[in-house]
Amino acid sequence: MKKSRIILMGFGNVGRAFVQLVREKREVCATKYGFLLSLVAVFNSKGGFLLPEGAAGKESLLDRDDDLDWERSPFWRGGRILEEAMESHPAGVFVECTPSNIKTGEPALNYIRQAIEKGWHVVTANKGPLVADLAGIMQRTEKKGVCLGMSGATAAALPTLDVALHSLAGADIRRIEGILNGTTNFILTRMKEGRDYKAALEEAQKKGIAERDPSQDVEGWDTAAKILIIANAVFRSGYTLDDVRVEGITRVPPKLWEEARKKKKTPKLLGRYSRDEENPIMESRLCLLEPSHPLAGVNGAQKGITFFTDTMDTITVIGGKSDPRGAAAALLKDIINIYRT
Amino acid sequence: MKKSRIILMGFGNVGRAFVQLVREKREVCATKYGFLLSLVAVFNSKGGFLLPEGAAGKESLLDRDDDLDWERSPFWRGGRILEEAMESHPAGVFVECTPSNIKTGEPALNYIRQAIEKGWHVVTANKGPLVADLAGIMQRTEKKGVCLGMSGATAAALPTLDVALHSLAGADIRRIEGILNGTTNFILTRMKEGRDYKAALEEAQKKGIAERDPSQDVEGWDTAAKILIIANAVFRSGYTLDDVRVEGITRVPPKLWEEARKKKKTPKLLGRYSRDEENPIMESRLCLLEPSHPLAGVNGAQKGITFFTDTMDTITVIGGKSDPRGAAAALLKDIINIYRT
Repeated sequence: MKKSRIILMGFGNVGRAFVQLVREKREVCATKYGFLLSLVAVFNSKGGFLLPEGAAGKESLLDRDDDLDWERSPFWRGGRILEEAMESHPAGVFVECTPSNIKTGEPALNYIRQAIEKGWHVVTANKGPLVADLAGIMQRTEKKGVCLGMSGATAAALPTLDVALHSLAGADIRRIEGILNGTTNFILTRMKEGRDYKAALEEAQKKGIAERDPSQDVEGWDTAAKILIIANAVFRSGYTLDDVRVEGITRVPPKLWEEARKKKKTPKLLGRYSRDEENPIMESRLCLLEPSHPLAGVNGAQKGITFFTDTMDTITVIGGKSDPRGAAAALLKDIINIYRT
Repeated sequence: MKKSRIILMGFGNVGRAFVQLVREKREVCATKYGFLLSLVAVFNSKGGFLLPEGAAGKESLLDRDDDLDWERSPFWRGGRILEEAMESHPAGVFVECTPSNIKTGEPALNYIRQAIEKGWHVVTANKGPLVADLAGIMQRTEKKGVCLGMSGATAAALPTLDVALHSLAGADIRRIEGILNGTTNFILTRMKEGRDYKAALEEAQKKGIAERDPSQDVEGWDTAAKILIIANAVFRSGYTLDDVRVEGITRVPPKLWEEARKKKKTPKLLGRYSRDEENPIMESRLCLLEPSHPLAGVNGAQKGITFFTDTMDTITVIGGKSDPRGAAAALLKDIINIYRT
C-alpha cells in the first residue's frame, strides 16, 4: 500500500489537533482511500522528534500518547533539523503549522521552499507564506511536480478553494464575498443583539474564539489575507496585501447600527473580490447586507463564502468547524486528496 | 495539447445547452485547463452527426451554428450508431443526456456500459442508469480505469457529490439533508405565501420550472433518486429506490400549513440520509424546518444541501443554476476535472 510520510512543522493547537486526528483517521485512510499515514517527524520550536526510516510501524509517533515524553525519547533531536528529516525519508508531505506572519511569511516560506526543492508535497495551515509569495510557491510546485494544499489557510473546514477550483471548474467567477473570520463574525453578531464592542470581544475571548491579541482578526488582516490568497489562487495572479483595502470592525460608528436596524440590514465583515474590467478590487470591509443576501444569516463564529459565476449562477457555502480540529481536518483532507487512489 | 473527444447522446434541452456551452468554453479549456474540447459525435433520437477522426478542426460540430442542417450534412447517419462512433475515434468521454428512466435506467445504462467497455470516460446528466445500477457502473469504471462524472445527475450546478467526496474527504458524513428539486421548492415557497397547490404548480409550469408532466418532481421521485445516488456514491453502497421512503407534496394537509405558520417553521421537501447504527435511512419527505435550519431560507427554485460530519461540523451549499445551462455547466465541470493538467 502507498505510504504518505508526513513531516509536521509546528506543534501548537493546530499541530496537536492534527496529530490527534491523524491517529484517529489512520484506519479510514487505509481502508477507504488506499494509503498509509506515517508521521515521521514533528517539530516544535525547540527541536523535533525524528523517526528513522524503517522504524515507522515499530514506534510510530502515532502510537505515542504521551507527547510530553518527547525529549526523553531516543528519537528526540534539538533544533529544527528539517533538511535532515527530509533526507532521512523518501519524499512525502510537509505540513506547515507554525504561527502566521503575514508580512514576511517567514520562517514558513523558507521551510516550504526547502520542502518543494526536496520533492515533498506541501500542505499548510499557515497563511503567511501564501500571502507573501503564492505565485512563487506555485511556480516551484509545478516545476517539481508536487502538490500544494491550502485548505487549512483558507477558512479551514469551510471549503472555499476546493469549491472554486474543483466544483466551479469551467465557470467564470466574477465576484467573491466571504465571511472568512469567525471571531469578527461572532463579535458583530453580538453587537447586532445590542452588546458593545468591548463586551462582545471579551465574550469571544472567554469562549476561546478570539485570541488574546485579537488585532489580526478585528483589524481585518486575517480576512484580507484569506481573500487575497483565494483570489490569487483562483485567478493565478500575484497581488499583495497592499492591493487589498483593509478595514476592521474596531471603529464601527453607532450610526451604522441604527441604519442597519432601520433598514433591516445586517453588518458583516466581508472579504470581497470583484472585477472592474480587468482590474481586481479586493477588500476586507464592513458591509450592510440585505436580508436576501446569502450570507446575511451566517451568525456567531460561523463562516461562509459566496461565488458569483457566469454559468452556474450563485453558489454559497456555509459552516465548517472554526477550531483547531476543524483546521486539522482541512489539512488531512488535502493530504487525502493528494494520496487517494 | 491533450484532446478530449466527446460523444454526446441525447439532444434535448440539456444536450443543446451543452453543445452551446462547449462552443463558448473551448478557449478557456485550452488556455486555462490545457486540453482541447472536440465534439466528435452527437446523437438525437433519429440518428447522429458523426465526424470522422482527422476531420475535427476542419469542420467541427462546434463550428456549426445551424443545428437544423444536420440531416443535410455529409456526416449525418441514421440510427444511434454509438459503437461505430466510439470505434472511429481514440477513447474520450461519453456524455449521456437522454431522458431519465429511473425504473430501468435504459437505454442509457446500456450506452454507458458500452462506453466503459470501450475505455471511454462517462459523464451523465441522466439519473436513470445511476439509480438502476451505480454499484455495477462503478465496478466497471474501476476495472477499466476510466472516470465517472455524476454532477449533472445530482443537482447539476449545485455542487453536492464534489463537496461530499472531495471537500469533505476524511470526514465521516453522518447525515445528509437536501432540497434537491427546484420545482417542488418553488411550489412550496409559493404555498407558504398563501397560494394553493394547483395555482403554484401552474405558475411553475408557466415559468418553465416545472415540466408539463410534473409527477416525477411533485411525487418526490426526483428527490428520492438524487439522495439515493448521492448516498450510494458517498458510502459505496448498493441500495435501490425500494429502500427510499418516498413522499411527495401533492397531498399536504392544510393543517400542516397552519402548524408551520404557528410555529414559524418552513415546510420543505427534503432528500434525507441518516444512519441508525449501521442501517441507512433514506427518504424523500416533507419536513417542517426550524428557522435556524441552514436550509430554511432556501426559497423559490433554489436548491441546497447540508452535510453533518464528525470533524468538519456542518457544511451547507446553496444555489446553483436550475436550468439546462446549469446542467450543461455541471457536465463540462466533470469533463474538465477529468482532463485538466
